[in-house]
Amino acid sequence: MENFKFWNPTKIIFGKGAIRELGPAIKKHGHKKVLLLAGQGSSKKNGAYDGAVKSLQAAGIKWVELWGVQPNPVLTKVYEAIKLAHAEKVDAVLAVGGGSVIDSAKSVAAGFYLSDIWEVFEGRVEIKRALPLFTVLTLSATASEMNQWAVLTKADEKKKWAIGADALFPLVSIVDPSVQMRLPWEQTVNGAIDALSHVMENYFVGTDQEVSMAVCESLMRTIITMTDRLQAHPRDYNARASLVWAATMAHNGVSAVALKGGDWSAHKIEHGISAIHPEVAHGTGLGIVFPAWILYLRKYNPKTFSRWAKQVWGARNAESAVKKMRTIYSKWGAPVSLSELGIGSKELKTIANNAFRMGSMGVVKKLTRKDIEKILKLAL
Amino acid sequence: MENFKFWNPTKIIFGKGAIRELGPAIKKHGHKKVLLLAGQGSSKKNGAYDGAVKSLQAAGIKWVELWGVQPNPVLTKVYEAIKLAHAEKVDAVLAVGGGSVIDSAKSVAAGFYLSDIWEVFEGRVEIKRALPLFTVLTLSATASEMNQWAVLTKADEKKKWAIGADALFPLVSIVDPSVQMRLPWEQTVNGAIDALSHVMENYFVGTDQEVSMAVCESLMRTIITMTDRLQAHPRDYNARASLVWAATMAHNGVSAVALKGGDWSAHKIEHGISAIHPEVAHGTGLGIVFPAWILYLRKYNPKTFSRWAKQVWGARNAESAVKKMRTIYSKWGAPVSLSELGIGSKELKTIANNAFRMGSMGVVKKLTRKDIEKILKLAL
Repeated sequence: MENFKFWNPTKIIFGKGAIRELGPAIKKHGHKKVLLLAGQGSSKKNGAYDGAVKSLQAAGIKWVELWGVQPNPVLTKVYEAIKLAHAEKVDAVLAVGGGSVIDSAKSVAAGFYLSDIWEVFEGRVEIKRALPLFTVLTLSATASEMNQWAVLTKADEKKKWAIGADALFPLVSIVDPSVQMRLPWEQTVNGAIDALSHVMENYFVGTDQEVSMAVCESLMRTIITMTDRLQAHPRDYNARASLVWAATMAHNGVSAVALKGGDWSAHKIEHGISAIHPEVAHGTGLGIVFPAWILYLRKYNPKTFSRWAKQVWGARNAESAVKKMRTIYSKWGAPVSLSELGIGSKELKTIANNAFRMGSMGVVKKLTRKDIEKILKLAL
Repeated sequence: MENFKFWNPTKIIFGKGAIRELGPAIKKHGHKKVLLLAGQGSSKKNGAYDGAVKSLQAAGIKWVELWGVQPNPVLTKVYEAIKLAHAEKVDAVLAVGGGSVIDSAKSVAAGFYLSDIWEVFEGRVEIKRALPLFTVLTLSATASEMNQWAVLTKADEKKKWAIGADALFPLVSIVDPSVQMRLPWEQTVNGAIDALSHVMENYFVGTDQEVSMAVCESLMRTIITMTDRLQAHPRDYNARASLVWAATMAHNGVSAVALKGGDWSAHKIEHGISAIHPEVAHGTGLGIVFPAWILYLRKYNPKTFSRWAKQVWGARNAESAVKKMRTIYSKWGAPVSLSELGIGSKELKTIANNAFRMGSMGVVKKLTRKDIEKILKLAL
């Protein structure tokens, strides 16, 4: 088993009515005025925004709002938010939304102290400190509510890149599954596929990290079962709550312990797609790339791919498991091929080149540009 | 699924050679002189003490040592350590040892700021702050290296009681499985049974907390399999490392999420035994109490006990699973009945009374004094 470090200081307040604890938590940490960053309005419909604002008011916390963070969030919005944070002299950031809003909030929190946050994405600057971050989660997928990662797109250069730093862990995250009860089915599915993909990125690197691998298998089975249950019974709170917590556990570091930091090449290939096609949701892209990735990579860690097939899908080999995976994704309404998105073989080279710009990738196998093209071909 | 809060800020540095990071970690937190608390000498044999001292020296951290913490650690030793901590003006506590040493160190860290730490155990005072705590783990069992709990015995009153507080989380814990490679087999087994019991205390409360229950099952299977592998191959590092990490995960809160704080009545019954018989190791006592507890309690949450039997033991019901459990404990050399310890039916009333002094107990079922006696009878 590999040496590892584990540290995750985020406090999770989970469950119905958890939002009431937001204001007191911010107050306890000594903050007086927050930048409330939000998306495109759904948090006004699901009750998260109202709950947050009521709790801030009750605790005497001031706030200034900035709306309009979009899926596949962009750098320009972050610049706008940083400017506002300085002008309004806030002392903390509050994200009310899903992964896109939280990732943007992280970039704002760190960017507040830097001349240009994008320098960090380019690997030229390190994050030493950040404004304290609080979150109210409205869509489970990225686990950004309980990790140190953020992904942003620089649209003019078609770069969708990631950063990570200890200072980016949220201090407190409010996770109330009931605000996700009326989520459009497509978003639930994208979130589930994203979460499942996070587990797989770590799992497939594994060989003998028994605890993490067994936890990963539990999470994958739970995510699949609960999504399926929600398709049949959309108002099943227990299924929703289990899916929500599994999605957080899928990328909060617990299930990644000793797994060498994971592989993440499937994610990078997907980023190669959605940087060019920002209309493709991250989960959708992963649902198409990952099955192909597995078919291409399975021979490089055969024991683990077989174990996965058996333990997660009850299948006799990885090929059959991928079939089952594509069948269930399709049943959920998710596309499983690039052609379903209207992306044809002509574009593969461009996408492969774009993904490859992030530098070498892959741990199960170090992928060449040729490998990426072959994987994309299997995803056609 | 129940509402819950999760917070665990301890940083784990895990693996071969991890001890070298101890000094730098203490220095990074700004501390200059620590109280090094240790047990009865085993850490001088397994290399943990030498490694710790070298790392402290290299980082320029001063220390004062206190040895002699015993298994089933006692309050008097903690008083002695607090006195020394004041006299030597230390600014942090370093535990080098197993759960007994770490629990004592926690009591010292909090007791440093109180007129009498025992008042906390009696429930009359709350812990508001504590000296920063660092640990070097030498025996995996209690997960004290990554939680906020401590158990201490007040020998003159035969009380073995517990405390918990946010301030008691260690800041950094060094967990190097290789220092446990030459552990006496009996201690490995006691640690494994203790860890397994922690998982069970949480698990059996469960009904539909799918993520935690599945993670619990993974941990139980891992602990059983890895202990078995170590009996056959004592120098198998991967088996040891998996057991070590599973023991930490068994009681660091992750597997207890949404499980109502767990049941803990089996633990309290065991404390009733080992407070009177301090020669009985905690793990040994649990190995005897828990199977009896399951036989008595199984009808109160039958679905979960059946699930446990099937998922963990591949057995068709809880009764068969308990048989398998006792068989494997016996194979490991652990006693599975009170009579093997020379405790007869005459003592049951005294033990039940002693356990019951801690107040009402049990979540699966609220146990009466009569219930406890009946459980003990099943353990004869």
